[in-house]
Amino acid sequence: MSTPDLDSVIEYLQALQANTCQALEDADGQGRFIDDAWVREEGGGGGGNTCILRGGQVFEHAGVGFSHVFGQQLPPSASRERPELAGCGFQAAGLSIIIHPLNPYVPTTHCNVRFFMADRNGQEPLWWFGGGFDLTPFYGFNEDAVAWHHTARQACDAIDEGLYATFKKNCDEYFYLPHRGEARGIGGLFFDDYNTGNFEQDFLLLKSIGEHFLKAYLPIVSRRKDHPYGERQRTFQLYRRGRYVEFNLVYDRGTLFGLQSGGRTESILMSLPPQVRFDYDWHPQPGSEEETLYKEFLPARDWLA
Amino acid sequence: MSTPDLDSVIEYLQALQANTCQALEDADGQGRFIDDAWVREEGGGGGGNTCILRGGQVFEHAGVGFSHVFGQQLPPSASRERPELAGCGFQAAGLSIIIHPLNPYVPTTHCNVRFFMADRNGQEPLWWFGGGFDLTPFYGFNEDAVAWHHTARQACDAIDEGLYATFKKNCDEYFYLPHRGEARGIGGLFFDDYNTGNFEQDFLLLKSIGEHFLKAYLPIVSRRKDHPYGERQRTFQLYRRGRYVEFNLVYDRGTLFGLQSGGRTESILMSLPPQVRFDYDWHPQPGSEEETLYKEFLPARDWLA
Repeated sequence: MSTPDLDSVIEYLQALQANTCQALEDADGQGRFIDDAWVREEGGGGGGNTCILRGGQVFEHAGVGFSHVFGQQLPPSASRERPELAGCGFQAAGLSIIIHPLNPYVPTTHCNVRFFMADRNGQEPLWWFGGGFDLTPFYGFNEDAVAWHHTARQACDAIDEGLYATFKKNCDEYFYLPHRGEARGIGGLFFDDYNTGNFEQDFLLLKSIGEHFLKAYLPIVSRRKDHPYGERQRTFQLYRRGRYVEFNLVYDRGTLFGLQSGGRTESILMSLPPQVRFDYDWHPQPGSEEETLYKEFLPARDWLA
Repeated sequence: MSTPDLDSVIEYLQALQANTCQALEDADGQGRFIDDAWVREEGGGGGGNTCILRGGQVFEHAGVGFSHVFGQQLPPSASRERPELAGCGFQAAGLSIIIHPLNPYVPTTHCNVRFFMADRNGQEPLWWFGGGFDLTPFYGFNEDAVAWHHTARQACDAIDEGLYATFKKNCDEYFYLPHRGEARGIGGLFFDDYNTGNFEQDFLLLKSIGEHFLKAYLPIVSRRKDHPYGERQRTFQLYRRGRYVEFNLVYDRGTLFGLQSGGRTESILMSLPPQVRFDYDWHPQPGSEEETLYKEFLPARDWLA
């Protein structure tokens, strides 16, 4: 029961990639994904397939990237929390999804599911799952925030009713910009080092996360994609995307580890928004919809209370 | 002779700020700087004055920021290279200049001059100067690159004819994106920990850097600001600005130290470009002007050979 099965994980992630791309193309109605398969030449081997949709009518930029990399020597930066694994052979497989919609009333979102396995000489391999999904609205809607977290809780409850509270808190803590004193968005789920000892059971968590992501996101897209907007909302969206850039380049561990360990730059930085503004010391007008985002949506709270 | 005189440095930096803003307003002909004075409340005291010009006819965004901060406890991250200073009282004063022009044929530029002083119980204070200036063209012109480095060498030669080669090499090494295998621009000067033991003499270096910066930059602005351009050049400019964002947020020590040590976020991030694009796996067309930047200008070379 607890023997890890990397091949099954890879097969699942590749199917999730294909299904996700198809569902996003259907939701967009116009944009099409382009597949970009790549090979990893340094630090062991492996490769991936980065699928990019650009300039859709709903999604300005969407990336769905699969990777499977392996090596004989786990880099020290990857084993900081597990020093006993330094220098061990490893395998890592993951799928990352990032969606930057065109309409500012449709939130940006991100999902990641990953599996890690390290060989330990003469012992059973060590393995764990990680991942989650989170939502970054520009304009807040209570209905959307509650529905998002409701579906996130369903994804967890299917496995263990104690998980949502922990993963939700992890997510609030992780997607946070200390230099702004500000959350990146309204959160969702984040977990790492997940291993209860039962591979099959833990793999079900990964599948549940993968299957609930678009269930949580696409209804929000449907509700907001035709919301009228103008220059003001577009400008605010590009400005808020600047926070996304700040978070991903200054704090996101996956991004920094990837860039610093010789990962494939374009596949790592596919998370960055297609267009961004930076405005010196900008503040929303009191009482505006933009201020509501800061006051009502970004501060961490229990959306299911 | 070697007693450090912080007040003189501050006075010089403030005058340099005023003169720089005036000269940039004159060169722009329309844009005006707005002064934003701020007070540092955490970690000791001090403050600064951040001057921002936005939406000029030549300069899309320019920032000229002075700061003077002090504290009783030098943060460990600031004393990593000098562990004997951890916990010492310190004073730091600096001026940063960043210019993002509108016309893609006018290069982006950056200049920084700074002074640092640490108290050591019962001993003379330790002090040093740092700074430099560098140029980031979107479209390369040999004439501009040679003139830029010629003036950079003049700034150094006025003090010591051995400095240019060292500071130029430092600059090439510092403003480099390892994950791209690419320089940020065509370099210039970069130095840190500069102390020959003679404060007055070393202060002359700072003044020389400060005085040669606009002498090097403004003639390039004059030559290129009316160069015709279209959508293609503007798009390339916004795309290349993405590299500027990557460098500043992933690698720039001043930016990261500032953000992580509770510095004033808006004054630190005034360096970011006003508008930016990120495009997945974009490459210039063979034989294009854009490719020439990558092939002829970004690889480090001796422009004065």
